[in-house]
Formats: sequence, structure tokens, C-alpha cells
Amino acid sequence: MKYALHCFAQSGNAYKAALMLELCAADWEPVFVDFFDGGTKTPEYLALNELGEVPLLEAGELRLSQSGVILDYLAETLGRFGPENAEERREILRWLLFDNHKLTGSVSTLRFRRTFSEHGEDEVSAFLETRAKGALGVLDRRLTGREFVLGERPTIADLSLCGYLYFTDEIGIDPRDWPSIRAWLERIAALPGWRHPYDLMPGHPRPDTP
Amino acid sequence: MKYALHCFAQSGNAYKAALMLELCAADWEPVFVDFFDGGTKTPEYLALNELGEVPLLEAGELRLSQSGVILDYLAETLGRFGPENAEERREILRWLLFDNHKLTGSVSTLRFRRTFSEHGEDEVSAFLETRAKGALGVLDRRLTGREFVLGERPTIADLSLCGYLYFTDEIGIDPRDWPSIRAWLERIAALPGWRHPYDLMPGHPRPDTP
Repeated sequence: MKYALHCFAQSGNAYKAALMLELCAADWEPVFVDFFDGGTKTPEYLALNELGEVPLLEAGELRLSQSGVILDYLAETLGRFGPENAEERREILRWLLFDNHKLTGSVSTLRFRRTFSEHGEDEVSAFLETRAKGALGVLDRRLTGREFVLGERPTIADLSLCGYLYFTDEIGIDPRDWPSIRAWLERIAALPGWRHPYDLMPGHPRPDTP
Repeated sequence: MKYALHCFAQSGNAYKAALMLELCAADWEPVFVDFFDGGTKTPEYLALNELGEVPLLEAGELRLSQSGVILDYLAETLGRFGPENAEERREILRWLLFDNHKLTGSVSTLRFRRTFSEHGEDEVSAFLETRAKGALGVLDRRLTGREFVLGERPTIADLSLCGYLYFTDEIGIDPRDWPSIRAWLERIAALPGWRHPYDLMPGHPRPDTP
């Protein structure tokens, strides 16, 4: 199976899928989506993904969106980083949902405002920083005494949760300040095949910057 | 099986699970969590759910948190509102994740600031309102020409997405202004066993209000 991943380098959500493909040594190619020029909101793109977001994975006839769905699908079809039983399946889902709601939900938006928009510091960035720190605290407690989120073995829960955390100097808070998160990020970066998002997907530096 | 659901009336996330239990005529009882008095952050509660949130479902020996995990589990064990094949399973997961990330992620926080905190209107409420309207727009387009999110049959995707949308006068924007959402909310409310969150869970009005 040859996969095509619609993505751009700055997207941590696309990185979750790209990292999974790369760690599994899958045969895949990126399809650049020019997000900063409105590429996720064109009629053509919305016809592919009504959510107006990356990532979008094409796998034969299948078109999948939402990073958690893509990770779940790839774990099943590639046979790696997935659950081994029903309990693990629920635990992985729990952390995928926590990531989307609480961690990525705050960290990605905070980073966007600080690094890719004209906003600057305001009440919104303060609000998002508080929420991001809360979510990082929950994750750090979880990783204390564990190698990975589920225990000794990395799973798609780890690949989801780390999606925005290698953009360390773009968030305005450094995830490595949480010691268990720091060690865990190093553990993931030591997995064979790991690459930084900016080395894995097209479009960095920001396309409209000379 | 007798279920216990840790919850409080104002929580739309707990409502997602409570509504599922009620629509399935399951044997369940609510366990009141005094959120407004710090009840989700006590050491005792954190020992039950490290995420420090409701809902938490007790089902025999199992303790499950994250509404999406609980819905997935109940659909499987109660045999209703779940997927019928792998494609539907992925589609339900896609909308559960969208709900957590984009819809509940903005609507619940916006409502909290406007109705249950001292903040009042500021840059944060404006920011959240923009995000909430964007997510409601995506959902409204999805529901145009469909009875429910997956088509003709209600699933746990609907029960998740509607979680905060019956608090119509507490959000500061009315979900019923989106016509396909309005019709869909009426369709869900017409399902046998449907009840409003304030009629289904304890703790309303807000416990510290006379």
C-alpha cells in the first residue's frame, strides 16, 4: 500500500500521522497543503475533507481525516503501536481524546498565536497558556514512573500527544520544563526512524516568507 | 449490570454519558461530584480519575473516564448507537474527536466563562465565540440533508456532539440559529427516554447558590 498524506510542515496534527508512517517505514508521500494561503478552506479541499483541516490520508480508495482516526487505522493495518487488548484500546482512546481536547487543543492554538499570527500577548494567550500548563501537568504526572503513556511500550497515544511538543521554541512555554515529559520526548526521538516535523513534511519555512 | 456515573448537572460532558445510559434504559445512578467546590481536584477524586474531570463511569470492576471512551464502551456492551462496520466505526471516531477538539472544546469553555465565572466579556470570550461558530458551521453543513451525523440512524457521535447544545441560553450564542442543528436537536430530543441535562443529573442549580 502506498499512502499519500495531505500536510504541511508546521502542522503538529499532520506530524502525528507522518511520524507514524515514518516509524513504520511505510511507503508514503506528502501532498503539500498551503494552509497559510487558505489551502484548507478551498472548495476543492473541503470536498476532500469537510472539516477543513490537515491531515488527510489517502490509502487506496479510503480517505481518512482526524489524526486520531488515521493513527487508529494505521496501527491496525501496519500492525504497530496499536492496542493488544480491549483495555489498552480504551486507554489509548482516552489519551487520544485528552490530547485533542486538552493538550493539542491549547498548545497548538497558543503556538499559532505566538509564532504564526499578528496577535502578540493578550488575554487570549494568557488564557491558553494556563490551559496548556494544566494539560502538560496531567501528562507529566502520567509519565512519571512510566516509559510511555501506556507503560513500557510506545503506542499511537504517545505519537498523538507529542505532536506539537517538538516545536519547543515556538510555543512560548517549553514542554521540556516538565521533567517526565522531557525524558519521554527524548525516548520517542530515539525510536528508529524518528524525525522532526520540519524534516518530515514540506512547507517550512512559512511559504509566504522570502 | 448496574452503572454509577460520577457527574454534576451542569456538565455537558457528563450529560453525553448520562443521556446514553437513559436512552438505553440502563440501570444507573448518578454520583454527585461537587465541581464548583473543587470536587474534581481532590486527592480522592484524582485517585479515581487522574484527568480531574467528570464523567467517570463505574461498571463492575471497570472505571472509565473521557466521555468518548464511555460512549464507545456502552455502545458495545448495551448494543445500541454503535457502529455497524469498520467504516462507521472510523466515522464515529472522527466526529467524537472533532467534538472534543473543536466543538465542545470551544462551546463548553465559552459557556463556562459567560455563565459560571466572573469573567464577563473580554478578548477570550470573543476568541472562543469565533471558534464555537466555526465548529457549529462545520456541524450544520454536515447535518444538512442528513437526519443524524452518520445518516438515518442516531449514534454515539450525535450523543457526544449535542452534549452542550441543550444549554441554549447559557452559551451566549444559540445553536438553534443554525437551522440543520436546530432540526437535529429536536430529533434527538424526540428519542424515547430523552431528558434535558438538568433533569438527568444532580446539582442544579449551582450548589453554592441559595
